[in-house]
Amino acid sequence: MHSKIILKVIGLLLMIFSLTLVPPVIIAAIYNDGALIEFASVMGGVLLFGLLLWLPVRDYKHDLKIRDGFFVVVMFWVVLGVVGALPLYIEQEVSLSLTDAIFESFSGLTTTGATVLTGLDNMPQSILWYRQQLQWLGGMGIIVLAVAVLPMLGVGGMQLYRAETPGPVKDSKIAPRISETAKALWYIYLGLTLTCAIAYWMAGMDWFDAFSHSFSTVAIGGFSTHDASIGHFDSFEIELVAIFFMFLAGINFALHFSAFRNLNTNVYLSDPEFKLYATLLILVTVLVSLFLYLHNVYPTWEESIRYGLFQSVSLATTTGFANADFSAWPGFLPVLLIFVSFIGGSAGSTAGGMKVIRFLLLSKQVIREIQGLLHPNAIMPVKLGNKSIPEKVMMAVWGFLAVYVFTFTIIMLVVMALGVDQVTAFSSVAAMMNNLGPGLGAVSANYQSLSDPVKWVLTFAMLLGRLEIFTLLVLFTAAFWRK
Amino acid sequence: MHSKIILKVIGLLLMIFSLTLVPPVIIAAIYNDGALIEFASVMGGVLLFGLLLWLPVRDYKHDLKIRDGFFVVVMFWVVLGVVGALPLYIEQEVSLSLTDAIFESFSGLTTTGATVLTGLDNMPQSILWYRQQLQWLGGMGIIVLAVAVLPMLGVGGMQLYRAETPGPVKDSKIAPRISETAKALWYIYLGLTLTCAIAYWMAGMDWFDAFSHSFSTVAIGGFSTHDASIGHFDSFEIELVAIFFMFLAGINFALHFSAFRNLNTNVYLSDPEFKLYATLLILVTVLVSLFLYLHNVYPTWEESIRYGLFQSVSLATTTGFANADFSAWPGFLPVLLIFVSFIGGSAGSTAGGMKVIRFLLLSKQVIREIQGLLHPNAIMPVKLGNKSIPEKVMMAVWGFLAVYVFTFTIIMLVVMALGVDQVTAFSSVAAMMNNLGPGLGAVSANYQSLSDPVKWVLTFAMLLGRLEIFTLLVLFTAAFWRK
Ligand SMILES: [K+]
Ligand SMILES: [K+]
Repeated sequence: MHSKIILKVIGLLLMIFSLTLVPPVIIAAIYNDGALIEFASVMGGVLLFGLLLWLPVRDYKHDLKIRDGFFVVVMFWVVLGVVGALPLYIEQEVSLSLTDAIFESFSGLTTTGATVLTGLDNMPQSILWYRQQLQWLGGMGIIVLAVAVLPMLGVGGMQLYRAETPGPVKDSKIAPRISETAKALWYIYLGLTLTCAIAYWMAGMDWFDAFSHSFSTVAIGGFSTHDASIGHFDSFEIELVAIFFMFLAGINFALHFSAFRNLNTNVYLSDPEFKLYATLLILVTVLVSLFLYLHNVYPTWEESIRYGLFQSVSLATTTGFANADFSAWPGFLPVLLIFVSFIGGSAGSTAGGMKVIRFLLLSKQVIREIQGLLHPNAIMPVKLGNKSIPEKVMMAVWGFLAVYVFTFTIIMLVVMALGVDQVTAFSSVAAMMNNLGPGLGAVSANYQSLSDPVKWVLTFAMLLGRLEIFTLLVLFTAAFWRK
Repeated sequence: MHSKIILKVIGLLLMIFSLTLVPPVIIAAIYNDGALIEFASVMGGVLLFGLLLWLPVRDYKHDLKIRDGFFVVVMFWVVLGVVGALPLYIEQEVSLSLTDAIFESFSGLTTTGATVLTGLDNMPQSILWYRQQLQWLGGMGIIVLAVAVLPMLGVGGMQLYRAETPGPVKDSKIAPRISETAKALWYIYLGLTLTCAIAYWMAGMDWFDAFSHSFSTVAIGGFSTHDASIGHFDSFEIELVAIFFMFLAGINFALHFSAFRNLNTNVYLSDPEFKLYATLLILVTVLVSLFLYLHNVYPTWEESIRYGLFQSVSLATTTGFANADFSAWPGFLPVLLIFVSFIGGSAGSTAGGMKVIRFLLLSKQVIREIQGLLHPNAIMPVKLGNKSIPEKVMMAVWGFLAVYVFTFTIIMLVVMALGVDQVTAFSSVAAMMNNLGPGLGAVSANYQSLSDPVKWVLTFAMLLGRLEIFTLLVLFTAAFWRK
């Protein structure tokens, strides 16, 4: 890949990023919260730097090949993650170390939502807005990544969703060109965000909180403007709004697109991934609520369901909002909820985890294998709806499971070798790779207490999870760098 | 499957089992240890009961189909596990509850080696011998299961080792009929046991301990006649003997057979699974020893290597012998060693875990997937040596990984729901499914303290692991019981 095209892309990216600092600058000015100069100077500096990179190579054109696709995607997240840390790093009132600022920035952009900050309630509004906005922008990137880029690159079986191949969402005829796809999906994303903000406002939030939280809800990010997260409001109405929009945000956006274009909600009910996604959420909610009630964690049915439902949806969709401290629930529940986040939301959404579609395919294959033991000569391909899944796709999904399990194990061991206890290591690595956010043990409140090396490893794990492992791993192969 | 053939098989099984009580009876008589009447009465009772089952149906003949194969295998282990518990249950000096006796018996037969007993050093010799012998007999069953039965049933990709299909051990031309194969392998098993016993004796054990420990070494069982396990002897020579024979026992017995018949050790070095098995053992040993030394767990290099080597080989082969309390080592090491036991020994050995060959195939597939991302149109089948692995086998291996991971997760959650903490639950479920034995946390010394329901779940997990999950799971499908 030519370095000129790299410079051009980075230059453009930086200029666009600097424009996204306009809202924080305005908010800093309105609230006079003391962060105006910092945001304005980062905005100017990044714009200037981007311009300087872009100008000399602006006329350079070069067709991107598959190999370049991986590089651009990784570069996109790494550059934005690093630049996004700048406002957090230079702002005095936040006073983050470089490591912490990078961690927080990547956590925002990858919509992980793990934080190293405390005292959010007293922080400058512009900083709070900026963090939420980071998640929202990250979510925009993920939608395009998940619906258009990963299927094209064929990562982890996601060629299943390639618009030009037969597959479950073929009928939605998503425009094959990324830019058109992106535009259509962003309208839906924007529409969901606005609706969510209005709903939060109607449920009792002020406009600032309503928009801030709609950003991190639709992005399945989980950042909040309060240390107590959604629990701060102690409002069942607000929690219901959050649950509804977390649920919507965890659905494949191609389905939303199809439903919106045809003004028909049947597309949801005929989608196997959606059905399993909804079923899993219900099952987990029932299990958690039942256990909460039977173990007297909450005295009434109503409370058991309220907290059980909210935390189940929040963790199963990998959002990470809290209306209760689930890490303090009896032993089995926190670990169950962390495990559920491995399944995560639907492919083509802003959710993390391995994605429901992969879990569905794996489960079908396991059932097929068991049946195959009794009928060794029968050939039973895995089907989704009426369509057989190509072996190539199944192999890619299997490869994904294996690399997910291996990578999780190795990163957990590395984190433990750096001195972290087993419960904290297990949950924090899961929370990063699944882009979930909250963990157990030492990270049940926030990630402040971890050492710098651990934070770097976890930052890497967030990126790994967000890029569905393979996109990042392929850059570490010799074949990638061969001429 | 006809109930008459079931009765005939069970009857035979019970009569054979009663014969295996002859050695404990003799030992009880020689040492006059007070267990003579108990062993003799169990022997007589089981013989009589078996005879009564067998006599009426002794002339009944029926061809076994694949479906029957699964049933017979599961029945074999369940019946022996239950009957094997009898001597432990009725013997006064052991005074085990029914649950504990069943747990200990299954732990022996499945060569898991987890114990609920303490005070082994003061127990009747006949009981000690009986436990060790249970492991040895279990090992005999496993060898036949792993080399002859599972490949025939096609469980988890093990059709790879089917003698009549092309595969890495085709050259060893193992007789396709189970009985011939079994005889050949048992001679090797017997030869290894005798050599191991002599080596232990030469290294300083008395004859009783030498044979007892050779039983549990060659069976990769891990039971000992002392609470402190191999550490009791505090002898580097004995530890070296244990390491050498644990290493041998973790190799595919079809390779031993081939090497023995051709009097040529090249078969080992040309086997991809053996190479990875040996490499992994070396890697883990180096990593563990280095970490032990650098973290000042042991003051000298010599001690770090001595304990690092022994525990690495013991846990990576899933034996579970101890010359040190590895659960007290710095956080990272115990979890690393538990994770390594998931890989386990070679297929076709008495080792537990998922088996090195599967790990090798999975790793190759992951590498293939990563390479495939850069060359999406190239077809790169997974190869072992010069031979391509059929997709059907790969699919079965993937199914095995998925079902292993799912099952582990669910059993761990169930154990936690029954009140066990995360560290104990993680390690004990891993120790059962991998037929490893020792765990961390509350089970680092023994499994006594767990509640009865947990012990039942763990007993089920041992059996699940030993029968490579699928063999047992298939019995829980509706298709299995359909006419
Ligand atoms: K999140
Ligand atoms: K064992």
